[in-house]
Parts: sequence; structure tokens; C-alpha cells
Amino acid sequence: MYIIGELINGMYRNVREALAVRNAAVIKALARRQVDAGADALDINCGPLSKDPVQDMRWLVETIQSEVAVPLCLDNTKQAVIAEGLKACRGKAIINSTTADPEKLDAYLGLAQQYHASLIALTVDKNGVPQDTDRRLELAALILEHAGKAGFSMSDLYLDPVLMPINIAQNQLYGILHVIQDFALLATPAPKTVVGLSNVSQGSKNRSAINRTFLVMAQVLGLKAAILDPLDEELMRALVTGELVLNQAIYCDSYLDAYLKSKKQSA
Amino acid sequence: MYIIGELINGMYRNVREALAVRNAAVIKALARRQVDAGADALDINCGPLSKDPVQDMRWLVETIQSEVAVPLCLDNTKQAVIAEGLKACRGKAIINSTTADPEKLDAYLGLAQQYHASLIALTVDKNGVPQDTDRRLELAALILEHAGKAGFSMSDLYLDPVLMPINIAQNQLYGILHVIQDFALLATPAPKTVVGLSNVSQGSKNRSAINRTFLVMAQVLGLKAAILDPLDEELMRALVTGELVLNQAIYCDSYLDAYLKSKKQSA
Repeated sequence: MYIIGELINGMYRNVREALAVRNAAVIKALARRQVDAGADALDINCGPLSKDPVQDMRWLVETIQSEVAVPLCLDNTKQAVIAEGLKACRGKAIINSTTADPEKLDAYLGLAQQYHASLIALTVDKNGVPQDTDRRLELAALILEHAGKAGFSMSDLYLDPVLMPINIAQNQLYGILHVIQDFALLATPAPKTVVGLSNVSQGSKNRSAINRTFLVMAQVLGLKAAILDPLDEELMRALVTGELVLNQAIYCDSYLDAYLKSKKQSA
Repeated sequence: MYIIGELINGMYRNVREALAVRNAAVIKALARRQVDAGADALDINCGPLSKDPVQDMRWLVETIQSEVAVPLCLDNTKQAVIAEGLKACRGKAIINSTTADPEKLDAYLGLAQQYHASLIALTVDKNGVPQDTDRRLELAALILEHAGKAGFSMSDLYLDPVLMPINIAQNQLYGILHVIQDFALLATPAPKTVVGLSNVSQGSKNRSAINRTFLVMAQVLGLKAAILDPLDEELMRALVTGELVLNQAIYCDSYLDAYLKSKKQSA
């Protein structure tokens, strides 16, 4: 599982306050802790209250890059903010995200190609989040068609089925899980899939239990990446045990320790 | 998930000792605790050291039936022991198990029909446990063919793909998980599948984590029943959360409490 740490987000008060006063130490510590806990990449989101998201994005990218070397996942709905983040990124970046609206999709495919970045494409369009699996598949097919026409590298594309909260759309989760398996059948090589895991438990009690149960189910259905909280130790243990069951890591009695050690060596 | 409690097994010392001196209190308490924890049925196994498994089986059935009213899952490799258990059972029984060897399979199908019992059929034959998914599917198809010819009710049949320990056959677990999904495609109505969950972690450290990760993965692939330890609270929490994610129980913030309450009322 490709783990994208979610904690540098202006939605959280500590990040919002650090952004406002340019407190680099707070941001760097959050970056370091997530990477040490196993994050392969870090999501960066200025939050909805940012007054100058372009400059906030640049400062976040530069600050985080001065601490860790992992890819950064630039998370914003505005193209100008994404573009500024891409300019500031030294290494590989991930664009989070485009919708399946053709004009936006084509623009983001071009932007990603220009910067050799990966691209997360949501199976959502101007009509909103699909209410069923068929519509998610249609939008995924449309994304793949545009990516194909643009000559976009499949290994740089992540489809996101748009995860809904269990307390709002409980009856959709089964379909969202199985569409992960179906997405893989839409093209060869199979497109990768990513989810914003914490969405599933938004507004619920027992958030960690719901997150890790959904994640383990998604693992067996072929999920390749997740934006999640790597500091949730129970979640990380479930993830590592899931990789073990799926033979993606070699079994040994001390597999949990071995996993984190290998992560730290590669970070 | 249909939960079959695994704790009344002569493999465990407390049960072996209780059997030897006919200590009914120990057995009754084990039955009661498992049912209170959410078991829908109880597996009964005299263990490999039993000197008189026929009489041990009868005593266990009678003792457990004097305490709880759930179906009993008669677990033995000898037909005479199963037959004695069936005679003693007042309610619905589950035979655990037949292999896919045609002669044995036909005999057990007949026995199950005679007593209106359910039957667990292992996808294993005289050549041993299959080393790949294709062979498991072949044996499942053979079992279904014989069941069909016998006019056996599909709702009384459980296919068991034979779960192997992760420290011995790690590379088979992915296939075993996905064959659960494939079994369902072999007939209409779909045959049900059961696993002996604890097998997956036999001989490992972190047994509970491996058990619950495998179980949650099997849930999303359509597993209908599991022989497991219902006193493992983390396992039961994972199972209930899994049912919630799959929309098999209605979400509410206090879903864990609600689940156990509904179980106790139906027991």
C-alpha cells in the first residue's frame, strides 16, 4: 500500500495556526513524524480558511522539503494553487485532484505531464458524487479514455472512487469497495486506485475501527494507495498485517517491527 | 456472519480434563460464555486424545443442550461419532465435516439429509489439501455436483476452502480468499462458504491480528460462516464493524452494543 499521510491539512487547528504565523517547526515535525510512522508521501492542504492559498502552498512545500524527501501530494481544488506547488516541488509530486469534467481533466493531465507528476482523478463531475457503482465506472472509463488520448502514463494515474461517510451513505460502501476491483479491469496495465480513507468515518464514533476495517477490505480488493493518518498505530498494524496476509511482505514472527524498520531505511 | 464458537474442543486442556471426569459445569460455562459473546452455533470436538469419542460426543451434546439452545456443529473425522452426535441432537445440527472423496461425500450427504442437518464439505480429497485455487474450485464443483444429484438443499451446504497457516503457506492465502468469491459463482443459489479461522494463525505470533485481518478480508469477499473464538473481543469488534461497512447491520453510533444486545435476545 502506498501510504499518503493526511495530517498536514489546514482543516486541523495546529496546521492552520502554524500556517498563519509561518511556524516551520510545527509543520516539519508533522512531516517527520508521518514519514517515521511509514508514510510514503505527504498530502498538503492549506485548508478552506487559507487567505492566500498560493503562497501558503509554496511555503508548505518548501518547509516540508527542508525536512523530508518523500513525494508531496498537492491537495487543492484550484489550478493556480496546484501549479504553484508543482513549481516549488523538487521531487516527484502528486496532484490531488482533478474531477472527471473533460475540460478540467484535460488541463490537469497536461499539467501533470509538464511536471512529470502523478494525478489523482476523482470519479465525480459537475453533477456531483455518483450515487451508484455504474456511474463511478462510467466516469472512470471516461478518465482513462482522456488519459489514453493524452498519452498519459498509467503508472502515474490514480482513480479515486470518492469514499462517502458510513453515517450518510452506508448502503454505498459495498459498491465502492467492489468498484476498486472493477476499476482494475478497465485497462491494461490496470489503473491504480486511491481513497481518502478518513472520509468513511467522518462524523462517526469508533472512527479508527471503521477506517481500518474499510482499509483491510479495500486491500484484498486491490487498493494501491490511501490517504490516511499514519500515526494511528492500530490502523498501521492492520495495514501491515493485511499486506502479510496478501503475501506482499514476507512473514516472520516480528513482521510489524520489520516493516517499520524497512520503511525508515527507505525514507 | 454465522458464528460457530470453537472453544469446546478436546485439543484444549480444560475441555480434555472436563471430558475425562465428566465435569459438566466446565462445558456448560464454555457453551454459555460463547453464546453470550455472540456465537450462533457451537463446534464440538472430543479432541485427538479421546479414548471413546462416540460416548464423549454423546455426553458433550447432552451436556451443552441442557445449557443452551443453539445448533451444534459436530466435529469429527469418524462417521460413527457424527452419527451418535446426530442421534443425541434435539435441534438443527451441522456436520463438520466430509471431504470431497465421492464415497465419503455421498454417505455424509445421506446422513445429513436423514437428520435434516447442515453439512460442511472440505475441498480436500485423498490427495490432501490442494496447493492451488484451481484444484479447490474443481473439488467444490465436484461437491456441488454430488449435492445436486442427491437433491441436497443448497442452504444446508457449506463449502470449506481449507485455510492454511500463514507461517507455512503464506502464498496461498490470497488465492484462498478469492476462491471464496469464486465458489459463490459455481451455482444458483450461491453455495455458502465457511472457514476454520484460527488455522490461519496456527503457530504464529500476533494470532488475533492475523485472524481478524483475514476474517475482514473474507467478509468483503462473501464468507457466510466462520468457526472462531467468540471470546476474542477484538475479533468480534472487527467482525461487527465489517458487517456495518457491508451494510449487513444498520449504522448507529453505538453499533457494537446494539449488535451484542440483539444477539443475546435471539439466543
